[in-house]
Amino acid sequence: MTIQGMMLIAGVPVAGTEPVFCATDPRSGEAIGPEFGSATTADIDRACRQAEAAFDEYRALAAMRRAQFLEAIAERIEAAADSIVTCASRETGLPPARLRGELVRTTGQLRQFAALLGSDGWAEPCMLTADPERLPTPRPDLRRRNIGVGPVAVFGASNFPLAYSVAGGDTASALAAGCPVVVKGHPAHPATSELVARAICAAVTACGLPPGIFSLVNGAGTEQGAALVAHAAIQSVGFTGSRAGGVALMKIAAARPAPIPVHAEMGSINPVFLLPQALTDRRVEIAEGYLASLTASAGQFCTNPGVVIGCASKEWEEFCALAAELLHDIASAPMLTARIHAAYEAGLNRLADHPNVSHASRGNVGSGPHDCAAALFRTDAASFVADGDLADENFGPSSLLVTCRDPHEMQMVAEALEGQLTATLHAEATDMISARDLLTILERKAGRIILNGWPTGVEVDAAMVHGGPFPASSDGRASAVGTLAMRRFLRPIAYQNFTDELLPPELSG
Amino acid sequence: MTIQGMMLIAGVPVAGTEPVFCATDPRSGEAIGPEFGSATTADIDRACRQAEAAFDEYRALAAMRRAQFLEAIAERIEAAADSIVTCASRETGLPPARLRGELVRTTGQLRQFAALLGSDGWAEPCMLTADPERLPTPRPDLRRRNIGVGPVAVFGASNFPLAYSVAGGDTASALAAGCPVVVKGHPAHPATSELVARAICAAVTACGLPPGIFSLVNGAGTEQGAALVAHAAIQSVGFTGSRAGGVALMKIAAARPAPIPVHAEMGSINPVFLLPQALTDRRVEIAEGYLASLTASAGQFCTNPGVVIGCASKEWEEFCALAAELLHDIASAPMLTARIHAAYEAGLNRLADHPNVSHASRGNVGSGPHDCAAALFRTDAASFVADGDLADENFGPSSLLVTCRDPHEMQMVAEALEGQLTATLHAEATDMISARDLLTILERKAGRIILNGWPTGVEVDAAMVHGGPFPASSDGRASAVGTLAMRRFLRPIAYQNFTDELLPPELSG
Repeated sequence: MTIQGMMLIAGVPVAGTEPVFCATDPRSGEAIGPEFGSATTADIDRACRQAEAAFDEYRALAAMRRAQFLEAIAERIEAAADSIVTCASRETGLPPARLRGELVRTTGQLRQFAALLGSDGWAEPCMLTADPERLPTPRPDLRRRNIGVGPVAVFGASNFPLAYSVAGGDTASALAAGCPVVVKGHPAHPATSELVARAICAAVTACGLPPGIFSLVNGAGTEQGAALVAHAAIQSVGFTGSRAGGVALMKIAAARPAPIPVHAEMGSINPVFLLPQALTDRRVEIAEGYLASLTASAGQFCTNPGVVIGCASKEWEEFCALAAELLHDIASAPMLTARIHAAYEAGLNRLADHPNVSHASRGNVGSGPHDCAAALFRTDAASFVADGDLADENFGPSSLLVTCRDPHEMQMVAEALEGQLTATLHAEATDMISARDLLTILERKAGRIILNGWPTGVEVDAAMVHGGPFPASSDGRASAVGTLAMRRFLRPIAYQNFTDELLPPELSG
Repeated sequence: MTIQGMMLIAGVPVAGTEPVFCATDPRSGEAIGPEFGSATTADIDRACRQAEAAFDEYRALAAMRRAQFLEAIAERIEAAADSIVTCASRETGLPPARLRGELVRTTGQLRQFAALLGSDGWAEPCMLTADPERLPTPRPDLRRRNIGVGPVAVFGASNFPLAYSVAGGDTASALAAGCPVVVKGHPAHPATSELVARAICAAVTACGLPPGIFSLVNGAGTEQGAALVAHAAIQSVGFTGSRAGGVALMKIAAARPAPIPVHAEMGSINPVFLLPQALTDRRVEIAEGYLASLTASAGQFCTNPGVVIGCASKEWEEFCALAAELLHDIASAPMLTARIHAAYEAGLNRLADHPNVSHASRGNVGSGPHDCAAALFRTDAASFVADGDLADENFGPSSLLVTCRDPHEMQMVAEALEGQLTATLHAEATDMISARDLLTILERKAGRIILNGWPTGVEVDAAMVHGGPFPASSDGRASAVGTLAMRRFLRPIAYQNFTDELLPPELSG
């Protein structure tokens, strides 16, 4: 497939205007053609109005029709898989094997939501029949179901060019819920976005659906996304990215004349607590697992372990030394964008300059312009608790080892944490008392807690929670991964004393 | 029971400080003793910290223990029912019979949540077992359940001194969810609040629960509520009241270093669409039902019908004339507070002075200082659509009749509406095409749609939705009434590869 350098607004290719931009090959730092234009205010307005105009027709479809549409998108992505993976690898520097896995995850997500549409799980119908004899007042017939909230703005994520971008989890869950979607593509992978958007538009046409249910708009900067979230037609937002970006969208959404919810997944430092017996029994295995989880895809996962906490002991020191040794051998890899690379290096410098942080190890430094070296630092619990900056996420393969004097200090570290996507405990039988105390704290802090494992590799299923108290996400009651994600874009509606001829099919009879 | 003029902070009576305030008898305008003091910043901080400190112990209780606690509150409210109803009637001017019904609703709500705690409905457990053989990666064991979000701030409502105040729906649903509650009592009924708070504190003691799980704080103005919502320990907010009040709390919550959700139910004009055949067949019955729904409790319900829309016809004119005639005979009644009364009169004056609004009828004017007269106005669809101010809620027994030229203008009126708690259709067999067209629009606008009935008399059950798109509520995905209300204060958490000894009981085995 040829990349045309186009957005797609309700199925129509649109070139956009200044400022133009193009992708960069992260391996070489060189620009990749073609140029893409940015959406004008009129482009964004058109995309949003078309989404609004298509909403009633789209949400009125039988759930099975929406399921067929999601399936059709998955099939078209699969048909274009080779082009998409090649293009995405060039734009992101991620290996084709990783992207092929991500593509399977993307089509898998679409099919999971399609399957959910075959059950009552999404509409949550609830019916209570009338009781005319009830005293003191008759009970009315009351029936409730969920409907889509309306058009949803979705932001592509740089680190998941497929699974959290144009046809990713936010888009799939919103479309499943009956909500039209306007995607703001991530400027780091515009050609990948165009290819996937064309797959979606082809599915829209093939399924005979109104073209307004899907648009892709581009923008070199932040203005287009801001205008999208501020648009009166937009009723909800799905975002995966930085804390600064997510908070900016939350502020725009809250300042609207009619405020809307924002579902921003803003990352996390994903604390890992290593309890004494686990360190004694499994410190080599733990160190190996840690390094793999920390450095996969150049550490560019929101769930990679940014801080590891242990109690001072010979075993902890051995673990730290082994982790440092293993990290030293980690090959360099290109980061997604020059900006992410610069932010990572700045984060390393902040830690290196911190008076209470010592440098533990550094991985190989590559020769590419965006290549990053993994890094390990050490500090003590008192310093970590005293300085909130040490708990800031540094997106990439950097991690901080925090030494506690005793289990009580471990609890203090846990209490000092902000909201997290995940928290991990490594614990064996004799660690259970400490593990329970920590668990009580971590349940308040995280959306997912892992025992004797690693936080990366987010399973996509009904039991997954990918979210957590602020700043892990903007609303800790939601999940961005798994079928629970659909609930973000649904709202309940009750029908009182309705007759069958006016009731929606899932509530009649 | 003697009223002591006290707040209750974690079970301890606290007198508060300047500015002091006391209730007013709405019938006479005279002050009712005793004086109540306002909470200091230190009082609010203490209430919030105690709530935070009690959270882990409270949420760890078996659900049955929380159910027993809700039941104990209901029993203590029933034991004090005579005192509470007498006191509430004096403070609100509402008739004892209405308040006795409201008390039954209040204890009924507590027991509904207690019953829900006996099922899986609140925790929503979801378990997916491991599959070590899965390719390319093994599937982990993943189990999800809901837990409480943390301490919740609840605001007492002036118009529901029992069912939406100290032990009302917000408090009951938050306590059921395992969340400690700090109530900001409404200054219009402080003695009622004290009596109910004492019932709750007695139940806390009897059930052997940590006293920090419940506090009542008072305030003459808005500062105490603002400080409460801004407090770092508070994780969610339940509010029923004015749009200005709700929006102010939304802004405070969004501006916190860690923003939190606000569940503000801010009222509505509850449009009623009268279709031609329904007017032909039932205009007398409809006019009678309309007047009853509009004027009950001096129209001080967030669901009373503030606007009625019909197409120009002889039958519509007859309906309007009949409604005007019936309204003319409506007895005056005292409004809850001087402030609500002044706002109502100001709203009437705005309508009376509007160039495109005509006066249709006025009810009896009473002699009490807060007495209000019901009022009916008329306008045409074009004027209603052109001037958004005509769609502002005027809390009280005032309603606007909107004449449309044809069904298309009815749809334009529906499209022009902001979010609503309810929308109502009166339609007979030959009205079905128009009804369906309107329904499609109204589903986007309202949380509950009523056919051939009236929006007041909100049923408290699992199928109820009391909420709606902004400004009806701050988040249209939530309900403030019925068991769905509990979901507002729950968040999901996933446990990955946990062993039985660390899993919570509802997920083990």
